[in-house]
Amino acid sequence: VSEASKTASVGGNEAGVECATRLELTAVAGLPIISAGDDLSRAIGDALEGADVRLRDGDVVVVASKVVSRAEGRFVDLARVDVSKRAAEVAAEVDADPRLIELILREGPFVSRASRGVLVVRHRLGFVVANAGIDRSNAAPIGAPDGTGPWVVLLPESPDDSAERIRSALAARSGARIGVVITDSFGRPFRLGTVGAAIGIAGLPALYDQRGKADLFGRSLEHTITAFADQVAAAADLVAGQAAERRAIVHIRGLSFPSVNDAASALLRKAEEDLYA
Amino acid sequence: VSEASKTASVGGNEAGVECATRLELTAVAGLPIISAGDDLSRAIGDALEGADVRLRDGDVVVVASKVVSRAEGRFVDLARVDVSKRAAEVAAEVDADPRLIELILREGPFVSRASRGVLVVRHRLGFVVANAGIDRSNAAPIGAPDGTGPWVVLLPESPDDSAERIRSALAARSGARIGVVITDSFGRPFRLGTVGAAIGIAGLPALYDQRGKADLFGRSLEHTITAFADQVAAAADLVAGQAAERRAIVHIRGLSFPSVNDAASALLRKAEEDLYA
Repeated sequence: VSEASKTASVGGNEAGVECATRLELTAVAGLPIISAGDDLSRAIGDALEGADVRLRDGDVVVVASKVVSRAEGRFVDLARVDVSKRAAEVAAEVDADPRLIELILREGPFVSRASRGVLVVRHRLGFVVANAGIDRSNAAPIGAPDGTGPWVVLLPESPDDSAERIRSALAARSGARIGVVITDSFGRPFRLGTVGAAIGIAGLPALYDQRGKADLFGRSLEHTITAFADQVAAAADLVAGQAAERRAIVHIRGLSFPSVNDAASALLRKAEEDLYA
Repeated sequence: VSEASKTASVGGNEAGVECATRLELTAVAGLPIISAGDDLSRAIGDALEGADVRLRDGDVVVVASKVVSRAEGRFVDLARVDVSKRAAEVAAEVDADPRLIELILREGPFVSRASRGVLVVRHRLGFVVANAGIDRSNAAPIGAPDGTGPWVVLLPESPDDSAERIRSALAARSGARIGVVITDSFGRPFRLGTVGAAIGIAGLPALYDQRGKADLFGRSLEHTITAFADQVAAAADLVAGQAAERRAIVHIRGLSFPSVNDAASALLRKAEEDLYA
């Protein structure tokens, strides 16, 4: 991380005063169905252009992990998965397809919780997620031959790197200093329903620290490190899900954030410090 | 819930097609410091008017729980709290102020996890939250006599009812069919940083069910019940926290949702079905 990029702030005004009190989120249409090997950054840039969005300093582009996975060819044909002894045992325990369990355990060898129909693992990327984030919807590659599948799609290989590639390509194309967040929908302990979560980030902070600002009565605020990138993901999921056909790209204007090189793993609590690990 | 209010949809177009693909969120300035007994609904209406926001059908007003608590006089002077034997024991275990622990256990008698400096309970309202959501920042009542305190503020008595009172007052004042969400910032297992969560709702659904819509390849989407109200809370927290001085009211325009009478408790997983309870 260069010092310049560490300290530059985007989206605020010149004096560094935070003035962003309005956000605009737009679910961007026009992204084609992505195939393995497609230039996703270019496709996203084209979709933004097609939607008349000209990127400015401080804009954030949110990309659903699914299209990143598709571009990276992270499809797996379940019919071709060899099942290990451990996967067969776990599959019997949770009553699920042993081939799917095999893939889940390859992506996340550490099992957090197992129950009928549910296998929650700590993913190799660090986050705790049901079924290792493996998805069966929109999972088939284009032109998959008859008689193959069922297909599933794994999470991107390295989402922070994917976010940085997209950020850098969009920045080169627009000249704007932007942030990129790659998101997935996660379930949660205690609460029902999925929420957007940041699994890869570039150009913006994972956490936003408001500690030290005095409150109205002169005391320091408590508990005020907000999960900035996760809230960006949740907000984007809200508008993406509102589109008539769920959209993979959301453009956000109006955030104020430092332009930093951070990693989505900064959002993760260390297992040894997690009361629920 | 009347059938009419159950089926009416707001924020979409007449044909019922979802067309909302743009959201605007505004952190509204101008709310005065709220005292016990203040007419909060009126103060919110005045602040919206002062910010030139005219409510329309489908708008959502998000209110930070802190101001609701203040209006309800949920202040407690720690110096006047009698400590029970159980609270004294738990306080010794987690190394915290026994008077604070007493209040936490009154609000949430069931302890989920206890560790040094942290006490996670299942709140009487149902949600699992650190320190029962009790906050020390901005916690003193206006005009608290010298020598009193330290003061803390409890979560609202009944946030769904508070949300409904605000919704109904704003609807009467504007003629618009709106939703109201009362939010707090919650920590999470596994992940760092706080996120906005819905603790009281009125006029909109807690969960938004997209199951049954076919995906691109004709399969049903999986895992697509989104935590609608929680994502509204997270998005609002994002813009509230961006304001130069954190703001208690956020106005959201552009969501499409059914106008239902739902409860925030619909977001809660039953303890017996929770793998992490």
